[in-house]
Amino acid sequence: MSREEAFQAAARELGYDFNGEIRIGGNYSPLVRHRGEIHVSGQIPRVGNEVMVTGRAGADVPLARAQHASAICVMRALALLRQSLGSLEQVERILRITVYVQCTADFTQQSEVADGASDLLFRILGAAGVHSRTSVGVYQLPKNATVELDMIAATCGA
Amino acid sequence: MSREEAFQAAARELGYDFNGEIRIGGNYSPLVRHRGEIHVSGQIPRVGNEVMVTGRAGADVPLARAQHASAICVMRALALLRQSLGSLEQVERILRITVYVQCTADFTQQSEVADGASDLLFRILGAAGVHSRTSVGVYQLPKNATVELDMIAATCGA
Amino acid sequence: MSREEAFQAAARELGYDFNGEIRIGGNYSPLVRHRGEIHVSGQIPRVGNEVMVTGRAGADVPLARAQHASAICVMRALALLRQSLGSLEQVERILRITVYVQCTADFTQQSEVADGASDLLFRILGAAGVHSRTSVGVYQLPKNATVELDMIAATCGA
Repeated sequence: MSREEAFQAAARELGYDFNGEIRIGGNYSPLVRHRGEIHVSGQIPRVGNEVMVTGRAGADVPLARAQHASAICVMRALALLRQSLGSLEQVERILRITVYVQCTADFTQQSEVADGASDLLFRILGAAGVHSRTSVGVYQLPKNATVELDMIAATCGA
Repeated sequence: MSREEAFQAAARELGYDFNGEIRIGGNYSPLVRHRGEIHVSGQIPRVGNEVMVTGRAGADVPLARAQHASAICVMRALALLRQSLGSLEQVERILRITVYVQCTADFTQQSEVADGASDLLFRILGAAGVHSRTSVGVYQLPKNATVELDMIAATCGA
Repeated sequence: MSREEAFQAAARELGYDFNGEIRIGGNYSPLVRHRGEIHVSGQIPRVGNEVMVTGRAGADVPLARAQHASAICVMRALALLRQSLGSLEQVERILRITVYVQCTADFTQQSEVADGASDLLFRILGAAGVHSRTSVGVYQLPKNATVELDMIAATCGA
């Protein structure tokens, strides 16, 4: 299965379409490409205009739902890479993701939430998707999102 | 208007002077330059020895004041780049900023707070100031600062 | 004293052995090496299977103990660099660390906690250990750890 096919299969399973152009608000860019590396801005689990998973992991949001949020965030990041590079085949390696989880005071499964993103990266990109990772529990996130995820990726060629 | 002029104009509007040497405490460096990239340490809205904006966004600190904090942080980061590079003309591109906002449990305008920094970067650096961005809501920050901001920038030349 | 000797001396003082292979769980890598830079995943103060320092700085965990946590995290990061590069002599420079501190609502000494890591980096690596740094106070961390620390390092050669 090509990366594109794996990406589309994951999108179907999540139940969303990630093929549209991703627009952003504010005076910054969803990604910046520079000398073989791409910095992807923090992604929340938004599809179109709607944030699909909001609230606090450990309270309103059970673990499986937070993992789903994490998966949507990483699909958005991949959609941005695909849009910028033309194809996911141009991704040389995912270097790092940071996963911020809005949680309760005693929720300690931030790593398990981040697995929702890590599993997809490996499934879609194979060895190129094996990344370094940091996951932390934060107090709030933009638009009450349950998860925010940012990324640094390396691109093929220069 | 040159970048230097835009920087000084922004400083006048904020009401502070960012021309002094920035000293730091602790066993680390305000920035590290390596092969065309500069990592800037987390900046709080300090001017001289005083942290100008402290407290929690959504409670003691209204949005406009938190944006002001965010603007001071980014001016400090630019002042450090300027001090290290000799001139802001040597900035090729701002690659990334991360904006940490000390906030209440239900404050969800972290992106709007970060706009205070993003707007200034674009105003002072133009297209070179368009960056990737992550903004999150944290529980506390050093010295009770309302905002902390760090940055990765690319420099002209090697 | 060589870097290796300084590393072993620090380990002895902390009272732990950092010579074993560090295993990880989950679908990601403890570090990713790419074109002269290494991204180290977020490290918690774990030794073997046990997280040595858990709980909230400012409540259950006094400052000195949080600094100890911070020191263990950075030793783990160095142990990973050493394991990957063969020797700490191959570290050209520590570019950045980010230090996340699980804390109470009014604990504002995140920088002081991070000093526990910064001091060790300088002591073991000398000038190569002088880094940029961000320290923030978060709401929770994986496995209730008091501190999590990630790192970007530059390696000698390509």
